[in-house]
Amino acid sequence: MLIKPGPLLAQIETPEDLRKLDSSQLYQVCTELRQFIIDNVSIYGGHFGASLGVVELTIALHYVFNTPSDQLVWDVGHQAYGHKILTGRRKNFHTNRTYKGLSGFPKRKESPYDTFGVGHSSTSISAALGMAMASHYKKDEEKQHIAIIGDGAMTAGLAFEAMNHAGVSNSNLLIILNDNCMAIDPNVGALKDYLTDITTSSTYNRFRDEVWNILGKISKFGPNAQEIVSKIESGIKASILKQSNLFESLKLRYFGPIDGHDINHLTSVLEDLKHIPGPKILHCITTKGKGYALAEKDQTKWHAPGLFDKVTGEIRKKTYETPQPPKYQDVFGHTIVELAKTNDKIMGITPAMPSGSSLNIMMKEMPERAFDVGIAEQHAVTFSAGLATQGLVPFCNIYSTFMQRAYDQVIHDVCIQDLKVVFCLDRAGFAGADGPTHHGAYDIAYMRCVPNLVVSAPMNEQELRNLMYTAQLEETKGAFSIRYPRGEGVMPQWRTPFEKIEIGKGRVVKEGKDMAILTIGHIGNYAVKACEQLEAEGIDAAHYDMRFVKPLDEQLLHHVFSKFSKVLTIEDGCLMGGFGSAILEFMADHGYQAQVKRLGIPDAIIEHGEQVELHRECGFDTEGIIRTIHTMVEVGIKV
Amino acid sequence: MLIKPGPLLAQIETPEDLRKLDSSQLYQVCTELRQFIIDNVSIYGGHFGASLGVVELTIALHYVFNTPSDQLVWDVGHQAYGHKILTGRRKNFHTNRTYKGLSGFPKRKESPYDTFGVGHSSTSISAALGMAMASHYKKDEEKQHIAIIGDGAMTAGLAFEAMNHAGVSNSNLLIILNDNCMAIDPNVGALKDYLTDITTSSTYNRFRDEVWNILGKISKFGPNAQEIVSKIESGIKASILKQSNLFESLKLRYFGPIDGHDINHLTSVLEDLKHIPGPKILHCITTKGKGYALAEKDQTKWHAPGLFDKVTGEIRKKTYETPQPPKYQDVFGHTIVELAKTNDKIMGITPAMPSGSSLNIMMKEMPERAFDVGIAEQHAVTFSAGLATQGLVPFCNIYSTFMQRAYDQVIHDVCIQDLKVVFCLDRAGFAGADGPTHHGAYDIAYMRCVPNLVVSAPMNEQELRNLMYTAQLEETKGAFSIRYPRGEGVMPQWRTPFEKIEIGKGRVVKEGKDMAILTIGHIGNYAVKACEQLEAEGIDAAHYDMRFVKPLDEQLLHHVFSKFSKVLTIEDGCLMGGFGSAILEFMADHGYQAQVKRLGIPDAIIEHGEQVELHRECGFDTEGIIRTIHTMVEVGIKV
Repeated sequence: MLIKPGPLLAQIETPEDLRKLDSSQLYQVCTELRQFIIDNVSIYGGHFGASLGVVELTIALHYVFNTPSDQLVWDVGHQAYGHKILTGRRKNFHTNRTYKGLSGFPKRKESPYDTFGVGHSSTSISAALGMAMASHYKKDEEKQHIAIIGDGAMTAGLAFEAMNHAGVSNSNLLIILNDNCMAIDPNVGALKDYLTDITTSSTYNRFRDEVWNILGKISKFGPNAQEIVSKIESGIKASILKQSNLFESLKLRYFGPIDGHDINHLTSVLEDLKHIPGPKILHCITTKGKGYALAEKDQTKWHAPGLFDKVTGEIRKKTYETPQPPKYQDVFGHTIVELAKTNDKIMGITPAMPSGSSLNIMMKEMPERAFDVGIAEQHAVTFSAGLATQGLVPFCNIYSTFMQRAYDQVIHDVCIQDLKVVFCLDRAGFAGADGPTHHGAYDIAYMRCVPNLVVSAPMNEQELRNLMYTAQLEETKGAFSIRYPRGEGVMPQWRTPFEKIEIGKGRVVKEGKDMAILTIGHIGNYAVKACEQLEAEGIDAAHYDMRFVKPLDEQLLHHVFSKFSKVLTIEDGCLMGGFGSAILEFMADHGYQAQVKRLGIPDAIIEHGEQVELHRECGFDTEGIIRTIHTMVEVGIKV
Repeated sequence: MLIKPGPLLAQIETPEDLRKLDSSQLYQVCTELRQFIIDNVSIYGGHFGASLGVVELTIALHYVFNTPSDQLVWDVGHQAYGHKILTGRRKNFHTNRTYKGLSGFPKRKESPYDTFGVGHSSTSISAALGMAMASHYKKDEEKQHIAIIGDGAMTAGLAFEAMNHAGVSNSNLLIILNDNCMAIDPNVGALKDYLTDITTSSTYNRFRDEVWNILGKISKFGPNAQEIVSKIESGIKASILKQSNLFESLKLRYFGPIDGHDINHLTSVLEDLKHIPGPKILHCITTKGKGYALAEKDQTKWHAPGLFDKVTGEIRKKTYETPQPPKYQDVFGHTIVELAKTNDKIMGITPAMPSGSSLNIMMKEMPERAFDVGIAEQHAVTFSAGLATQGLVPFCNIYSTFMQRAYDQVIHDVCIQDLKVVFCLDRAGFAGADGPTHHGAYDIAYMRCVPNLVVSAPMNEQELRNLMYTAQLEETKGAFSIRYPRGEGVMPQWRTPFEKIEIGKGRVVKEGKDMAILTIGHIGNYAVKACEQLEAEGIDAAHYDMRFVKPLDEQLLHHVFSKFSKVLTIEDGCLMGGFGSAILEFMADHGYQAQVKRLGIPDAIIEHGEQVELHRECGFDTEGIIRTIHTMVEVGIKV
């Protein structure tokens, strides 16, 4: 079912059409765009609150600026639904986040209006500054460059690094701070408090507003006026404004805060800012979920609610007659609390993912022992290292894809010092609908090359629990990483008693005689199914759940390579340098010869889709495994 | 020759001894410590300016605080020479930075006074905050935690992330901002300008100083006084201080700026700050190289000058009768200028390493096209990506070890989008005396698993030039990385004409019949020597300079594995997942069988030493290569 747009929205194929409208019609466009988003997400799913919060901002930006020649850079990008709908993708919008459909994030290949692909947060200022400096270099000073960044994303170091550079650049950069006090969970940290202070300090605001108003208006009267403005501004700064604002401290002219839902004020402000040269920041206050009462009220829940009834707000959940396996993240969330109850050294750390990692369970039960440090992966890891120096046992939970942002900290602050930090890498393997920016494809390769680090992955809930248990034991030294995928495991009865797993010991899932399958992690469950089907055909494959990429179970591998001449490795990580390569290294180092096939993620950017669709595409779902084994066994028969 | 310490310094084995001295003697201790550092570095080498700049600070900290129970966390760490000398390592100090000797940086294994190992910048606030929160959790509120961080290090995102957390923490954390306007090169960016503003704004300072003086003094009168202080402070803040300072914006109490060379004022200030609870920052102004006139004058040159005559200041340089090969970094520095002259799209980017990367040559010749973005590796890469979207060709030069800090940006901002950014990874392989924090050990493994990225390494100057030339050609698409080591190449006559290298094409160094050696990068020159010696023994090994880790030269490899049953791979990178593993993957994927030995950096933390000492330790210097080939050939004979 295609969603019908309102009458004005129906006329807008590109921002060119939007710009033909009279400004008095914009309010109506906002209403229609908001409704279109609600209608779509309720039926087709996707991110919700963020895009509703920036409806006015999106329309104002495309109305005032000459997109795509002027360049909008959306941070994180899941607030860009409105942007996509206004830029030629309304009719395809129902394919959003589906396999082969539109991406849920801005994507350069998808549209010239998507100036910079994104998914991770806090990249927009750097990227837009690069574009602005390129324009400056090309002497194209008319071109406008706008980064739209949330207050949650502003806490990440990358954003700060970019501001430090932007402030002293002679670029024509406008940063729009979309301040809604939220990341996925409520935003945390000193910056958040500061923004609240600014917003509530009315004298200050009034004064700033007046100054800005005057300057903005004068500056439209041509080049001479600009010089005057510049002088007035310096004068004012030299007195009261000097060092009066965090952003001004960083040499960014600060404007605001203004109401980000007042479309007419927004357009007039943006129009003024066009004529003020140099790097500057506009602070807009918005409400995540704006215009949908329930979403405004519970913003975390409505960040990406799944399908729902737009009238009643009832979120559609599948119901099951029998108990279902839990999500891995919930096994983590409950297990860390269980362990922390008996080991008072355990602490929990998450960079802005309390609900995504389920660390919120511990944050609720043991608030003094669980830290949400905001979007700040680097700090999360080095802070954990600091805790570890004092004999505590931090469990630092970071999505595989976001751990890329703390890689140096893993090496430099944890592993070189041989500190005991437990890394829990959620969303390892394919992220699904979020796509390539969020796939946890590389962690096995980039973690296993780091010394003093155990690299493990559980095949089921029980193994996750036991790996967590093992990692925190007094006798376990050094850093320990545990990767597990997004979504559900396989054990409805998952609260099993804790058992130590010997570090570097794999597990025999089944013995066999024709060949060996070595798997790492949850993906091993495909191999179980494959073996069942193959047995029916008379092919008897052995299956080993290796559990550890490092250290490898050498005893088990000697057994495998002594017994089998055909070995298949399966992982949901990149093939280059991954688990399969570790097996090849073992083989070479010990002089074994065998036919080894490796299944995993090929050396390419895999787009978005359901996890199972992507597994199929890469050939390591059950069917793919069977297909590969057929070739291996046939080749064997021929020989 | 052991350096003789002055009479007071001679009595100080640990800070305990220092604390026995009368405060009136501290000035003399400073003089003696400074002299001891000058004497040592002039004869034995090492970092110079940074430690001279913090002599007073170092002595004041150990005098006031109860180290090692109170915890000092030194950022970057090359300013910690004074700290090392005062904490039991004076008599071994001549071994500083030598193989098996003292580390040039703080190192936990070396001393309980070294609370956190370091080498990369900007980690101290996160680490100290972790320690402080651990103390808070353990209810050990007496314990003090002090991070000492330079203004250069403060620009990195990690420091900002940590401040954002610290500001809202209930930790007893003191941050000392050692403001000397320098990293290795002069510091850049908006923050630097801001700190200069603060420092020169005298009214502001006087007011802040008075407030602080009163508060500091009152607070010593016990718990009731603390409450009063707290009230006064809130009162003041609510009026004029509110939002008046960048650090206050981040909820850190700001004190200073004060003269970091006034030992008596410093000790009294630190004594006061001990009694002010909560997170706070003390801004100290220091001069890098303080007390050695030449070093004060040319701070970049005297960051780590090598050996010198302490009286005349003459830096001892080896002289040669014949032309010597240039440093790889200089080949980069001159070549990018040559290329930029004919290709106006080329831009140069460095995060705070103009002199270390030799991008300073371009910065001087083409200032509008070369950017030093400060210590901000993440931003350097995403900014480059932004430039690339506009059709420019950024050469982003980052040391291999520091690229770990921009890993997510390489994946998420450059490679997923298939943007054309050229990464030049200097200091790949062993860094030498800087040790494990600076070794470029992992880049081959962590770069080659990323799609849309060419991974290359030149064996000599000519190849570096030609790889750079090839990377910038119009017809070359996508990201391109070139890794090369610290130090000199092999070609005195290196300014060869540019020639395109076909991407993914290796080079035959010599053909042979007994076995094949595959090398990547400069380390291949060891293999050349090894082959010469082996030939004399009658062993005829073929040697191929692969030049590309990705894409591999498959044609060449088919030739190799068809012809040879013994293959040796050599790389100066980690063996886990590195170049050798790439060769094993090729072999497995194409069903070849061969005896493959891999030489490279083992899965362990390799300490500091001369590069050649470390190559020997890892067994891939010329002797090591010969030794390995002997085993391979002997095994061959037996079979």
